[in-house]
Amino acid sequence: MLDELKRKVYRANMRLVEEGLVVLTWGNVSERDPETGFFVIKPSGVPYALLKPRDMVVVNMEGHKVEGECRPSSDTPTHLAIYRAFGNVGGVVHTHSIEAVAWAQAGREIPCYGTTHADQFHGPVPITRALTEDEVKSAYELNTGKVIVERFEGSDPLERPGALVPGHGPFTWGADAFKAVDNAVALEAMARMARLTEQISTFGRESVPKLPGYVAEKHYSRKHGPNAYYGQK
Amino acid sequence: MLDELKRKVYRANMRLVEEGLVVLTWGNVSERDPETGFFVIKPSGVPYALLKPRDMVVVNMEGHKVEGECRPSSDTPTHLAIYRAFGNVGGVVHTHSIEAVAWAQAGREIPCYGTTHADQFHGPVPITRALTEDEVKSAYELNTGKVIVERFEGSDPLERPGALVPGHGPFTWGADAFKAVDNAVALEAMARMARLTEQISTFGRESVPKLPGYVAEKHYSRKHGPNAYYGQK
Amino acid sequence: MLDELKRKVYRANMRLVEEGLVVLTWGNVSERDPETGFFVIKPSGVPYALLKPRDMVVVNMEGHKVEGECRPSSDTPTHLAIYRAFGNVGGVVHTHSIEAVAWAQAGREIPCYGTTHADQFHGPVPITRALTEDEVKSAYELNTGKVIVERFEGSDPLERPGALVPGHGPFTWGADAFKAVDNAVALEAMARMARLTEQISTFGRESVPKLPGYVAEKHYSRKHGPNAYYGQK
Amino acid sequence: MLDELKRKVYRANMRLVEEGLVVLTWGNVSERDPETGFFVIKPSGVPYALLKPRDMVVVNMEGHKVEGECRPSSDTPTHLAIYRAFGNVGGVVHTHSIEAVAWAQAGREIPCYGTTHADQFHGPVPITRALTEDEVKSAYELNTGKVIVERFEGSDPLERPGALVPGHGPFTWGADAFKAVDNAVALEAMARMARLTEQISTFGRESVPKLPGYVAEKHYSRKHGPNAYYGQK
Repeated sequence: MLDELKRKVYRANMRLVEEGLVVLTWGNVSERDPETGFFVIKPSGVPYALLKPRDMVVVNMEGHKVEGECRPSSDTPTHLAIYRAFGNVGGVVHTHSIEAVAWAQAGREIPCYGTTHADQFHGPVPITRALTEDEVKSAYELNTGKVIVERFEGSDPLERPGALVPGHGPFTWGADAFKAVDNAVALEAMARMARLTEQISTFGRESVPKLPGYVAEKHYSRKHGPNAYYGQK
Repeated sequence: MLDELKRKVYRANMRLVEEGLVVLTWGNVSERDPETGFFVIKPSGVPYALLKPRDMVVVNMEGHKVEGECRPSSDTPTHLAIYRAFGNVGGVVHTHSIEAVAWAQAGREIPCYGTTHADQFHGPVPITRALTEDEVKSAYELNTGKVIVERFEGSDPLERPGALVPGHGPFTWGADAFKAVDNAVALEAMARMARLTEQISTFGRESVPKLPGYVAEKHYSRKHGPNAYYGQK
Repeated sequence: MLDELKRKVYRANMRLVEEGLVVLTWGNVSERDPETGFFVIKPSGVPYALLKPRDMVVVNMEGHKVEGECRPSSDTPTHLAIYRAFGNVGGVVHTHSIEAVAWAQAGREIPCYGTTHADQFHGPVPITRALTEDEVKSAYELNTGKVIVERFEGSDPLERPGALVPGHGPFTWGADAFKAVDNAVALEAMARMARLTEQISTFGRESVPKLPGYVAEKHYSRKHGPNAYYGQK
Repeated sequence: MLDELKRKVYRANMRLVEEGLVVLTWGNVSERDPETGFFVIKPSGVPYALLKPRDMVVVNMEGHKVEGECRPSSDTPTHLAIYRAFGNVGGVVHTHSIEAVAWAQAGREIPCYGTTHADQFHGPVPITRALTEDEVKSAYELNTGKVIVERFEGSDPLERPGALVPGHGPFTWGADAFKAVDNAVALEAMARMARLTEQISTFGRESVPKLPGYVAEKHYSRKHGPNAYYGQK
């Protein structure tokens, strides 16, 4: 069943790898089928090089496997909690992409420092509260989804299509699986830009040696001046 | 019309991707045709993987589309303002390349710390003033071009073939589209080098453990000494 | 002899390159054969581009070459010490991967800042004590293995499948050569994430210019608002 | 003439690109022919994609072109000064590789923080004195070579096969062109490792949130514990 959706979810999972967001098997994408209400998700712990469209697993809104030979991703209950609460979300992505994870591990939301961010997210990238010890010890993955949902109470999840779970990493979503992957790609770039922005803003500017003017002139003029001798005539 | 120029502008856009300057669809290149005064530019929001030469859009110096099935880049008015003011500029590039964006987001011009920079830019990479709220709310993209032009008043734009718009990112230009792409590539490398230069200059040197001399000697001599045993005989 | 194991160890060595963990010839993988007790290891100093399965060297538990035309890796005695002490370890990897080396050079264990780390290592990534001058001057590589073994006294090496040697770099291991390579890949990612986490936690947040709200609104709305003009209709 | 050497120098130049040390056309490799005393070097400013073995230029020890249709690299006099002074050097490389340039721009030698460095260089990577204004204004490239030679007075250049010129970048050398390229690759890795080492040593460790133990336990045990549910059975 849902063979076309399985191919699409397979392709979306492979795009995570092509975009450099995945280390080993650490990532998963799902998409919801609007007709049945089932969603299709990557199997748990299968190397991407061996993944095939027919390995994708079909899961229902109770979180039970409907079809598939493999176990679904261990993060399946997180996807489930998001689909249950966010009616306009059709695709969900979880990765351990490095820059977004670093913000999650630092326990900080990502501030909006520029238009690249403003193009994608309406406000900072939210970070959820930490799970309590109880929430971790029982139904951990479902509770991970629930703190995400809690963080978006009263707001449209598509206006900020992703969140960080502190000490863990990013989850993104979108109208379908490909949009959710696009948002994961965008989030990773925004996270890197924000880190570098803070670095450039912070470093003392006094202590760095400037290039002497006569060296700068020499280099500019040997390449662009009237007697330039760089390159071919 | 302008089929050859469309192929060239297409190729220049694809070079942005090959050089790693583009995330998702965030980048655009144009080139001006000296005969007609029209310029050819990438369509808005089309994935690079689907882009074809015939998708390129022809725009006139009033900013109206002359030919093309797609909408031109939403940044078209910025390109327009640059072509209008800079008579010797034949190609324009806009990207959200990560290192240059980080300087723009930090609101800093890029100082000339070395000959790599001096080879390309005559002085620091300029940063424009911020747009006023009025300028953002009306004709935003055209005004983005205008603050760039304003920043270069009285100077030759080809001596510093690019600028940063604060909170936004880099724009570069050149005699044609390929030169403008080269300048975008150079700017990204210069931006990264300048950031790392400040980092290396700033970090305290006292606190780092030096390798004990006897370990260094052991390693050097097992590879290069008279009784070296690394590698094949 | 052990032709199949040689092919596997060859493949595991090539995976180090494919995963970006290797510069020049700086890396080696071995696997132990449970039947003979011999282990198969990469030859010393052979460029990866020229490596062939039959170049792999067979070594016994006294550290003597049993078969092979090449010299084994100069780090062979380190592998040997690990195999001797860790009965449940079947594969060993040594690299000079950049992020893990940087922690080793800084002389710090890698703290557990997040779930990516907790998924792989049970506690911080251990760092061994420094070798004494005597240990460096005699049987250096064997002693490198011994300080690793010493560091794990009383604990299961598979619970933390790797360690840093200060001023040197990472060693990882696993049930077989591929698992050991997976652990080297994971360690490099964990090391990078931990560095970035500390950077993001440390940088002053006050000094960075925020994007004005009216620019953020403009960008978000031109892409997602009711009158969006980014992209194709 | 020297057709085989031209092919080798061409290949060595292309390896710079394959190893990621080159931006645009910023790099050049040469090798000396022991019989004639001539050296073969890359032409100036030719894009790597268009480079052919027969474009390589033959230069004699007076710095005059002996053969070739192109102009030799504008850095040819620097190579010349190195060949003249260092009798045991057979190949020279100049790049603007980003990490090594950053140290050069910061005006610092690269300290030996670990065995990766000690394997390649006998002591820190030297930095030359800055050129005087006079030295820049006349015979700039030759004087660049001369300050390198001056820095190595009384020492064997093959014990530290490279140097940084402040505000400029790295030069490396070796017995032949391929060895010189290997040393350029090694220097770039050492430069990056040293920068990250200082970063990791410097950042305050107190301020970073540790992952709660119960989350770490949960993650470790769901993957490795007796009731692990990550991955396939």
